[in-house]
Amino acid sequence: KKTNNKSQNPLFHTTISFIRENERKLVHSIKVGIALVLVSLLYLLDPLYEQVGENAMWAIMTVVVVFEFYAGATLGKGLNRGVGTVLGGGLGCLAASFAQRAGGIGNAIVIGIFVFIFGAAATYSRLVPMVKRRYEYGAIIFMLTFNLVVVSGLRAEKVIELARERLTTIVMGFSVCIFISLFIFPIWSSDELHDSLVSRFEHLASSIEGCVEEFFKICDEKENRRIPGFDKCKSVLNSRSKDESLVNFAKWEPWHGKFGFSHPWEKYLKIGELLRELAAMILSLKGCLVSPRQLQAPRESIKEACEATVSSLSWTLKEVGESIKRMRRCKAENSILPKLKSIRVELSLVMPPTRLEPLVDKREGL
Amino acid sequence: KKTNNKSQNPLFHTTISFIRENERKLVHSIKVGIALVLVSLLYLLDPLYEQVGENAMWAIMTVVVVFEFYAGATLGKGLNRGVGTVLGGGLGCLAASFAQRAGGIGNAIVIGIFVFIFGAAATYSRLVPMVKRRYEYGAIIFMLTFNLVVVSGLRAEKVIELARERLTTIVMGFSVCIFISLFIFPIWSSDELHDSLVSRFEHLASSIEGCVEEFFKICDEKENRRIPGFDKCKSVLNSRSKDESLVNFAKWEPWHGKFGFSHPWEKYLKIGELLRELAAMILSLKGCLVSPRQLQAPRESIKEACEATVSSLSWTLKEVGESIKRMRRCKAENSILPKLKSIRVELSLVMPPTRLEPLVDKREGL
Repeated sequence: KKTNNKSQNPLFHTTISFIRENERKLVHSIKVGIALVLVSLLYLLDPLYEQVGENAMWAIMTVVVVFEFYAGATLGKGLNRGVGTVLGGGLGCLAASFAQRAGGIGNAIVIGIFVFIFGAAATYSRLVPMVKRRYEYGAIIFMLTFNLVVVSGLRAEKVIELARERLTTIVMGFSVCIFISLFIFPIWSSDELHDSLVSRFEHLASSIEGCVEEFFKICDEKENRRIPGFDKCKSVLNSRSKDESLVNFAKWEPWHGKFGFSHPWEKYLKIGELLRELAAMILSLKGCLVSPRQLQAPRESIKEACEATVSSLSWTLKEVGESIKRMRRCKAENSILPKLKSIRVELSLVMPPTRLEPLVDKREGL
Repeated sequence: KKTNNKSQNPLFHTTISFIRENERKLVHSIKVGIALVLVSLLYLLDPLYEQVGENAMWAIMTVVVVFEFYAGATLGKGLNRGVGTVLGGGLGCLAASFAQRAGGIGNAIVIGIFVFIFGAAATYSRLVPMVKRRYEYGAIIFMLTFNLVVVSGLRAEKVIELARERLTTIVMGFSVCIFISLFIFPIWSSDELHDSLVSRFEHLASSIEGCVEEFFKICDEKENRRIPGFDKCKSVLNSRSKDESLVNFAKWEPWHGKFGFSHPWEKYLKIGELLRELAAMILSLKGCLVSPRQLQAPRESIKEACEATVSSLSWTLKEVGESIKRMRRCKAENSILPKLKSIRVELSLVMPPTRLEPLVDKREGL
């Protein structure tokens, strides 16, 4: 029995650490699995199947396509799907009944023209940046429903009946998604956005500190070494598209936790933009750090001033990050500006004025 | 009649300029419209409808969902959809026939378990970055098909027949998409990627030039002015996510024009990364430009050297960009490195060695 225990232990540990690392992903996967089983009951249980019939398909389709990782994404996609279906179905019915007046071969021609015009218009709207960002999925569903309704209007007499039944099952699927996504271990994109913004302040503060530490380290082989913190700096630099999608999802999310209904999500984008500029500046210092031709002598004379500056800068960054984290007005607000100004004066005494100004100016802008 | 002409003219001109600006988008919209009309014929023409029946729906659905802006995106999504459908359908059939052995209520329970396991597994795979990048759509379609087949296996006896018919119509829809997307005014993401990379070299060259020009301009109100070229620099900085998606699409695209089968798309990402670093450095010069406390006097002494440097740097950038554009080995290769080295020596004569080194080092890395 003992050998059995031993051979299982490493497997057990890797499993545990895998679960810890991917906790949220696993929770999401299980939630989707449960939602799928629930909508499959429409097929599996006879009394339910007698009610909805083949249309149960649309409930399954809705869950598969709409259930996304973040609660806001699920809600946004679901609402897009709902509005797209209603609009597409309604306009499809109108177009089908209009086409029926033409009768015979004219009917098919009129439907063909409708299909072309609405298809092309909806496709164009998908390419408009504003629509693409928030309503692309709605435009796709509009196109799909409109086409299906308008062409089957030719065949099925009871097109409105058909639309009503499909809509009912879509609403069922959507309700299951929303319930499970919002009420069972919800994964909020607003939390993710908020936390990632706060952690970026810390990353930048630590990479500024790392920079200066490296600069004053006495070391011969500077060419090949890696500077700690620069990877994080780069990830800050590349954060824009993730920020934008998180803000998009967060806007769909209802009131929860510390976030109210009109939380200023746009400001997250602005602060993110400033942090990216700052990250760009820190990254550009890399050249100074790896350059082998720098002299060691003059460095010592500015070491103290530099270290004082950097510790104030990183303190400021951490302080601002902390106040965003707690969503409170920055307590140190009144002490930050004078501190930065005195640093500037101090630096201009040790250095030619052009050298360190941009960094200080920038920080004041924050 | 003359007044009529006059009032129509501005409308006519805006229409023309709108069409010019959005040419590609309009072409794409019209292509989608045509594809939709073609697959709608399956419904509209009686002989065709007798062949495929209600399954024509799947052809329409395929066109709406698969037809994307870039040819590569359409091809990738279509292949994902095809493979996902075949895999999902096959496994669904197996699972359904396995579940049928259980019989009675056991059948429904076994199906429920299958739905949960495969649904959760496919959802998890969607969150793995490598799968997410290229095969997310395939995983969604796998989930969808598997579920539909496995639950309708309970109801429809002829589940294989059903799968075969649906697959046929999906293949029809896909063929229409591919034909129209690839052969009628194709919009290649590879062209877009190539051109955008080349144009970024030019943008950076012109913003370096703009920087130096601004720096030596004698001007009092420096605080509020906008520096030309910085917006382009920022767009270079934020180019990563667009690059990645274009590379993804380009990998799906078949041989065409100047791009062979194994075109080194990954190198575009690497060059893009270097250009982003360079853009970060140029952006960080902004602080120097807007700082009001700089002295005018010492500037004049370095003006000549700076301007010579910058013109060499931007010449180098343009030369490298041009050689990428023409896909030829850079002719000036042998003259670039000595030129940059001589610039470095020249600069170190006028300036303290720490000042401009990083910029020169960087350029050599390219």
